[in-house]
Amino acid sequence: MRSLNVSLGTRSYPIHIGGGLLSQAALVTPHLRTPRVAIVSNETVAPLYLDKLAAPLRAAGVAVAEIILPDGEAYKNWETLNRIFDRLLAERCDRGTTLIALGGGVIGDLCGFAAASYQRGVPFIQVPTTLLAQVDSSVGGKTGINHPRGKNMIGAFWQPQLVLADTDTLQTLPARELAAGLAEVVKYGLIRDLPFLEWLEAHMEALVARDGAALAHAIERSCRNKAEVVAADELETASEGGRALLNLGHTFGHAIETGLGYGQWLHGEAVAAGTVMAAELSRRLGWLHADEVERVRRLLARAGLPVRGAALGAERYLELMGHDKKVIAGKLRLVLLKRIGEAVTHADAPRADIVAAIEACCA
Amino acid sequence: MRSLNVSLGTRSYPIHIGGGLLSQAALVTPHLRTPRVAIVSNETVAPLYLDKLAAPLRAAGVAVAEIILPDGEAYKNWETLNRIFDRLLAERCDRGTTLIALGGGVIGDLCGFAAASYQRGVPFIQVPTTLLAQVDSSVGGKTGINHPRGKNMIGAFWQPQLVLADTDTLQTLPARELAAGLAEVVKYGLIRDLPFLEWLEAHMEALVARDGAALAHAIERSCRNKAEVVAADELETASEGGRALLNLGHTFGHAIETGLGYGQWLHGEAVAAGTVMAAELSRRLGWLHADEVERVRRLLARAGLPVRGAALGAERYLELMGHDKKVIAGKLRLVLLKRIGEAVTHADAPRADIVAAIEACCA
Repeated sequence: MRSLNVSLGTRSYPIHIGGGLLSQAALVTPHLRTPRVAIVSNETVAPLYLDKLAAPLRAAGVAVAEIILPDGEAYKNWETLNRIFDRLLAERCDRGTTLIALGGGVIGDLCGFAAASYQRGVPFIQVPTTLLAQVDSSVGGKTGINHPRGKNMIGAFWQPQLVLADTDTLQTLPARELAAGLAEVVKYGLIRDLPFLEWLEAHMEALVARDGAALAHAIERSCRNKAEVVAADELETASEGGRALLNLGHTFGHAIETGLGYGQWLHGEAVAAGTVMAAELSRRLGWLHADEVERVRRLLARAGLPVRGAALGAERYLELMGHDKKVIAGKLRLVLLKRIGEAVTHADAPRADIVAAIEACCA
Repeated sequence: MRSLNVSLGTRSYPIHIGGGLLSQAALVTPHLRTPRVAIVSNETVAPLYLDKLAAPLRAAGVAVAEIILPDGEAYKNWETLNRIFDRLLAERCDRGTTLIALGGGVIGDLCGFAAASYQRGVPFIQVPTTLLAQVDSSVGGKTGINHPRGKNMIGAFWQPQLVLADTDTLQTLPARELAAGLAEVVKYGLIRDLPFLEWLEAHMEALVARDGAALAHAIERSCRNKAEVVAADELETASEGGRALLNLGHTFGHAIETGLGYGQWLHGEAVAAGTVMAAELSRRLGWLHADEVERVRRLLARAGLPVRGAALGAERYLELMGHDKKVIAGKLRLVLLKRIGEAVTHADAPRADIVAAIEACCA
């Protein structure tokens, strides 16, 4: 088992990474305020892993409620969130109850926001079962739901007590979702960790083949990068750089997700295509060479990811990007690459260059 | 103008109290992140005070959106909250937009929770226009909405940047609502400020007659008490005493509000009847004399408040109280009076005494 710590003062928490962690109740119980949990999962993950997590907890004397939601980004909305609240209230769960998110990013975001707002806040634990959730969404405290007008528009910063990343769960993950997770893994290399990017270029086939050691290394390195960024800028308030850099490719990607309707593209797929757009725009600003854009595109393609955006039209992209949370006072602030391995936030990209970058990278 | 500070480290903020503050844009503008606000108000308050607040802000160069909601506790729910989100997104309000709550406790709770969760948190300012909101709900960062199964079950702790209590707005407040605010004023005397309680006993008629100087004193003293309690226990995590003491009468009161359906009794009215129940239970535990219970009842009655609870039956009370957020691990934790001027939290009141206290204090 590999372990690291997210350093956030009184809100610090450990991340454990390894095989078979799901069933180790002793990793969970020290973090419970009272011996009572509600596990939130979905119809896909629950049949595979819920009992593996719940049975040892029950054997350890913990009362376990199970809340099973439908699967998919389309359900990351108020109605589903309210199903969690309904059950917590019906079960008379109090402020000492810990919510446990067992699933991917959607479950983590929903369960985390439920924990943030149920009775103005209860503890929660992340047990991510997708690569994307293990390397990204389970770490850092971002929680929330979508709104018809925009993704993740309603939510909270709410840090978990513990993240338990069981690498065994990745063996049942659909190939498309594994690839989606790799988009975020590649991101850490691109924005702040060139040696890791080079390691990924040497090991991408091992990752796609789900080699356990390679996955564990990639998850740990990704979490260390994310933990460092989050520790320095917990609430994404840094005016330059900081946590916003984690959004490389995300502003373009959100446009794809929103424009097509949630659930058509996976988040990581949209991020991959968005990352190529960001690289192409960086080239137009004179920061990257054409062969560096190609280097980014090639690595993402080897991960099995789309490297061209959906053909929404540049104007529609800009309209959808205008709703992004990264907009401050009307300016479109983008995360771009100053060079491979170093991202920056930039609010002054000429509109014509943004349009050209989008058009150059669309299907 | 009287001013005091709520000391919460980086989340500290000032409270200004006085006449005519609403129109002083210079008090507001230093607290804005960008020159853009959305004022959230209701159909009763907006015709009276919205222009008084908005016009000077616009004259100072601030872009002002207006979000007018229906009036009443019955609207403190997800649907109304979502109307705020819809408008904020339609107006493309970004993370720098400050939400301003102009109204009573319902508007403050709704607007505050909208601010806590819109794009994972934007700044907000409280401009309370009821006595209850000025002395209680606008200070301390509790925000939220009701759920059919319980009051304030969904919400967040989210501190404002500023509280502006314009005492002039109390001149248009219905008498019943003025009285409801006085229930919380009396509370501060009962739980931690005997000299203030004695002052209230000497000045209750002046307060009911809306004497400006008396009101300003009562508001300032109430806010100072609340600010001290909140500063010591921001997130209500103290296991004994702390912020929970502010809930004197509230657990019984919530049962009345929920049992009758939100909006039948005003919150402060339910708290007044609940406070008498808490005093009566304290007597049964040997902490108060019968004449001290009578002292509490008399002061609340002089404020024009109900001092007997709704006749729901003791069993229904207990059932409804079991859903209260003050329940930790299944035990009913109540705020009671060790003596006049000193409250304690107590989880060991015999059920028979709770039943007897409820029955003794019901209509």
